[in-house]
Amino acid sequence: MFRPTPANLCPTMRVRYFDISVPICEEMLVWPGDPGVKIERSRHVSHDATILGARLALGSHTGTHLDAPLHFSAGEGTVDAIPPEALIGPARVLDLRGNIEIGRAELEAAKIAPRSRVLLRTDNSNWVRRGPMPERPAHLTGEGARYLVERETLLVGVDGLSVDLPGRHEAHLALLGAGIPLLEAVDLSAVEPGDYHLICLPLRLAGGEAAPARALLLK
Amino acid sequence: MFRPTPANLCPTMRVRYFDISVPICEEMLVWPGDPGVKIERSRHVSHDATILGARLALGSHTGTHLDAPLHFSAGEGTVDAIPPEALIGPARVLDLRGNIEIGRAELEAAKIAPRSRVLLRTDNSNWVRRGPMPERPAHLTGEGARYLVERETLLVGVDGLSVDLPGRHEAHLALLGAGIPLLEAVDLSAVEPGDYHLICLPLRLAGGEAAPARALLLK
Repeated sequence: MFRPTPANLCPTMRVRYFDISVPICEEMLVWPGDPGVKIERSRHVSHDATILGARLALGSHTGTHLDAPLHFSAGEGTVDAIPPEALIGPARVLDLRGNIEIGRAELEAAKIAPRSRVLLRTDNSNWVRRGPMPERPAHLTGEGARYLVERETLLVGVDGLSVDLPGRHEAHLALLGAGIPLLEAVDLSAVEPGDYHLICLPLRLAGGEAAPARALLLK
Repeated sequence: MFRPTPANLCPTMRVRYFDISVPICEEMLVWPGDPGVKIERSRHVSHDATILGARLALGSHTGTHLDAPLHFSAGEGTVDAIPPEALIGPARVLDLRGNIEIGRAELEAAKIAPRSRVLLRTDNSNWVRRGPMPERPAHLTGEGARYLVERETLLVGVDGLSVDLPGRHEAHLALLGAGIPLLEAVDLSAVEPGDYHLICLPLRLAGGEAAPARALLLK
């Protein structure tokens, strides 16, 4: 019987997919104080089938997710209004491993093209799935965020739970204030720095300030 | 200040996106007996920002979603294991409006190419967002589903909450048994029948039998 697999689907296609989404499960890392993920599985046996289902409880910022301007009251933009054109297209994974603070100097050195999508690979990718989160994870400084606004960046992706240091808000305020969507908590540990095509799609949460998302890179 | 919009993002790009996902909100249509969607919004005021958040409770089959073989114990395939190659690629929207039962004859008339992705546009699109669901919504018959298996279909999308008539399981068993992922509860009311490029991404729910998804068509 035919079963779709990558091999028999597109034998001549050279695209390779990298799933940079964090798997959603009860053991995943969540923000300190967040009640976490609950997955309640169900099982219904009928005359001809055994049907499995599940009910999920999770935060809108759980795992890989998109922040919209409304998250920081930095505008009225909601997650369901982020244009697909921002979420889909060429993206560059920058190698920022070894840095805790990512400011203008580090980003200038990376030579970011104007109006591009950037994903910052840091050491955060090492713990973003299961934790523990260090006290000072790698983060964008306010100055770094303002540089990305100057470059008219289309989308910023980070491998930590937040683009800011915990308790700080400058990077969120600068980026969301400029209408730039933030893709947070992607796992970049398996992707080499370089150029890709990004597809990230948040759930269509009506009026949401953020939503869980799936994110893939194509090479 | 620069704000990414479709117009200034890709002025020369001719791609047009159609969001066929059902908006997620408390008023949306859910399966009879399902406890429905709960969205608990939060607001935190700090010295420099007002931060909005939300906690979500919903079923794994709520709104637009992907069914994996495990949903009907029709195999061990989970939603996080569906290959991106099945979820992304050319897809045809078939015009099946006016039909309640969709069987082999209706699908043969639509001349489906082998190994293609098909989305069945029926009158279900008229109520899939808010209901009410009629007693006999448009659905695939077991014979129709087996025809799609014969055609080695890569993915089947429907605009009802289920590919089967309520209480029936033949179409699920045939399609999921052949490893064909099901995209259920898409709203096709705004897309003309014809050829598109589909991008549908379910959340990466570890070991899930299904997961909520975002689905776009590109023309």
